[in-house]
Amino acid sequence: MNSIIRQRLFQQIVSLAKISGRNYYIPRRALLYVPGDDPKKISKSFTLDADCIALDCEDGVAINRKENARETIRSFLDKGKPTLSRDYDLGVRINSLETPYWQEDLKACLTAKFLPDTILVPKIETDETVRLFSDELGKYIGTNQILNLIIYIESAKAFINLVDICKTTESLSKTGNFRPVCLVFGSDDFCANIGITRTEDANEVLYARQKLVLVAKAFHLQAIDMVYIKYKDLEGLKMQCQQGMRMGYTGKQVIHPGQVSVVQDAFLPSPSQIEWALGLLKSFEEHQKQGKGAFTYKGNMIDMPTMKQAENTAKLARLKTS
Amino acid sequence: MNSIIRQRLFQQIVSLAKISGRNYYIPRRALLYVPGDDPKKISKSFTLDADCIALDCEDGVAINRKENARETIRSFLDKGKPTLSRDYDLGVRINSLETPYWQEDLKACLTAKFLPDTILVPKIETDETVRLFSDELGKYIGTNQILNLIIYIESAKAFINLVDICKTTESLSKTGNFRPVCLVFGSDDFCANIGITRTEDANEVLYARQKLVLVAKAFHLQAIDMVYIKYKDLEGLKMQCQQGMRMGYTGKQVIHPGQVSVVQDAFLPSPSQIEWALGLLKSFEEHQKQGKGAFTYKGNMIDMPTMKQAENTAKLARLKTS
Amino acid sequence: MNSIIRQRLFQQIVSLAKISGRNYYIPRRALLYVPGDDPKKISKSFTLDADCIALDCEDGVAINRKENARETIRSFLDKGKPTLSRDYDLGVRINSLETPYWQEDLKACLTAKFLPDTILVPKIETDETVRLFSDELGKYIGTNQILNLIIYIESAKAFINLVDICKTTESLSKTGNFRPVCLVFGSDDFCANIGITRTEDANEVLYARQKLVLVAKAFHLQAIDMVYIKYKDLEGLKMQCQQGMRMGYTGKQVIHPGQVSVVQDAFLPSPSQIEWALGLLKSFEEHQKQGKGAFTYKGNMIDMPTMKQAENTAKLARLKTS
Repeated sequence: MNSIIRQRLFQQIVSLAKISGRNYYIPRRALLYVPGDDPKKISKSFTLDADCIALDCEDGVAINRKENARETIRSFLDKGKPTLSRDYDLGVRINSLETPYWQEDLKACLTAKFLPDTILVPKIETDETVRLFSDELGKYIGTNQILNLIIYIESAKAFINLVDICKTTESLSKTGNFRPVCLVFGSDDFCANIGITRTEDANEVLYARQKLVLVAKAFHLQAIDMVYIKYKDLEGLKMQCQQGMRMGYTGKQVIHPGQVSVVQDAFLPSPSQIEWALGLLKSFEEHQKQGKGAFTYKGNMIDMPTMKQAENTAKLARLKTS
Repeated sequence: MNSIIRQRLFQQIVSLAKISGRNYYIPRRALLYVPGDDPKKISKSFTLDADCIALDCEDGVAINRKENARETIRSFLDKGKPTLSRDYDLGVRINSLETPYWQEDLKACLTAKFLPDTILVPKIETDETVRLFSDELGKYIGTNQILNLIIYIESAKAFINLVDICKTTESLSKTGNFRPVCLVFGSDDFCANIGITRTEDANEVLYARQKLVLVAKAFHLQAIDMVYIKYKDLEGLKMQCQQGMRMGYTGKQVIHPGQVSVVQDAFLPSPSQIEWALGLLKSFEEHQKQGKGAFTYKGNMIDMPTMKQAENTAKLARLKTS
Repeated sequence: MNSIIRQRLFQQIVSLAKISGRNYYIPRRALLYVPGDDPKKISKSFTLDADCIALDCEDGVAINRKENARETIRSFLDKGKPTLSRDYDLGVRINSLETPYWQEDLKACLTAKFLPDTILVPKIETDETVRLFSDELGKYIGTNQILNLIIYIESAKAFINLVDICKTTESLSKTGNFRPVCLVFGSDDFCANIGITRTEDANEVLYARQKLVLVAKAFHLQAIDMVYIKYKDLEGLKMQCQQGMRMGYTGKQVIHPGQVSVVQDAFLPSPSQIEWALGLLKSFEEHQKQGKGAFTYKGNMIDMPTMKQAENTAKLARLKTS
């Protein structure tokens, strides 16, 4: 797009965002893992412009470094979330609830001076695990505080129970102190669990990959796509980003700083998505002025999740044009 | 096939159809939408030889034309279903039960002098919606009258609840005044809901598209494939018809008169399907004569739905040869 | 791999197998069907080195030969399972529980002097069928005897009920005299049931094929892939074996002796799988020596099914190197 159109787009979005005045969603295009026991890498991660930074206690940290990771993460949280040029999500990935580490992980970050925005919980396989997490969370933070919850789906059993996991999470979040925001497709553990060998087009995981995004959307959650392991192959990364985005994924896991900008760019909305979102927001604005009843847009009844989706797209569009 | 074989095939089917004497299924290869507020297009639709004509109150009609569509459809129904050279399905697509329009839509067509064959209900997401529809239907027509019901599945939530929707529909139909006959894959709304961008091979919707046809068949329903939007590209349409038919779809939605004949041709049964159906019907005939017990064909126990499927194939084969 | 590495690998596995001392899984790469009424073919099957031989009462036997098949199978069982150069699985495929034949089939093989290892039950569609089978089994064999159960999934309805079937089977097996070991994708009946026409890449059955392997793994079962019908095309067979193995399948149905060796070779584990399994078993050995608590390997908590999987891979690796 040329700069005049981009400017006009930008102005439209700014004014519309003011009118609707809501801010439910934040984009999570690149979900970047940083080893929790490496202060240097953590510091660097704040310079990379990733939508979501996950300080890792899990796979990225050796067993004999778990305690070290907790202390390092806690000391970062004590200093407060660094202010960057734009908002981002700062999370902590704890160890799986099947391990003996997760409670200490949770304690370390929930008793820091400042809370992280988000807790990322790997290897959730049943709704019972969500209950366990919810109970533990309640020990540390009050009901006036709300943490985001990012759920990892990475085994056959988890896929069998996926709808139940989401239902229970949604239900518990109504009275609890967390809010589910994402499902993550933990493809490496998933492939190991099933015995899958992936090829470049990842056709072997198509069933699971598309089921995850469908269930995520049914529960108004973002869907984060699998890791692209060959971190030096940025062209391959871009292709897989686009493939995932076409399926409805809203972001992708990132294991190397060099992958961040490719992912952030690839998950910007397309021109047709931007047009749809702006049209919807504008139509809503006019509708509000006229005090009409049911709100429809292009023949569809518009509900709150759809409004949120439009606003999210509009926000991303602003990133594209700024 | 040459004309002698075609003639023999035709004679076989005619005689077999007489013997079995059942007529549960009618083919629904092309499901053609006609805007309910356009008398000219409605009149034209009866000349197009589509298996199923849907007079549309929903997406094809602007909001300020809804009342007009109801009146137009009603006046057509009052005149009685036009007699064409062969049988076809005449239906009305009402607005979604989430809108404020559907009850008026239903009233308009159910209080006409002659009922339509079929009601098409878009955007069904839960079995609760089916109950609501069933209750409303009961207000207008008696239990001695049976309308066909065509169900649209077009959101993530609908796919989550798909088996429940079909179970409830099957259960309600036993005492109610409707009979479920089809599931329709409402791909455009589905893609918008999930955030999917389709490519030409539609690999992005493969999970949903194949789940729908599997569930449809588990409940002995026909499965109607997605719309092919590029209505001028008849070669592309044909390819997508064949792709859907290979997956088990029995028909396809049609948004333009020019698409009808391609779709009707593409969904004719293949020679091997015809051979299977004729063999089964013939075997059944012999079996009946001999008064034997359990009926098997090529090693499979044959139940009523399979008989129906064979008869449907035989009917379509007759179209192919006539 | 060169012979020195192969020798070292072999020694490692032998010593590790001694330490862990468990033997839950046996490989089932080629599942070979032999018509139960053909003594010559049965005798030949024992020379073919297939992991699993299924003496067939079902599709491979004409209706007027069912009684003959039962007698032939019984007389083979009376002589005792032939000892071959390595262990294998000897099973009997009975007729579907929807037919009037299955009880006689079961009686014939369960009252023989020696039991088969495994009963293969086709066309299971609901968990009720598993109960029926379990009850019938209980009439013939005591609770101190355990037969393997191989379950065929081959219709839309079966896929709808797949998780329920597996849950009930798992539950019944805890007190019953059978142990579920495999799910088989009965693709030919499945395609006929849905109305699917398969192409060479089998993309039309992708949803079902990947759902089956996922559910199998969630219940710690092996997954046996579809039949490759063109039995003279060994290159095509090999391609489809590799495709299935990449998806997580552990074996394949074989309808012709000429297919056995291709399938047995194709389903050997890959070098990376062997490396993973050996590493895990070795790590477990060291862990046991040191008397540590929770056992993790490469960041994952290792549970019993994963140990079994590693041992199975190690066994197959031994076949590869011997």
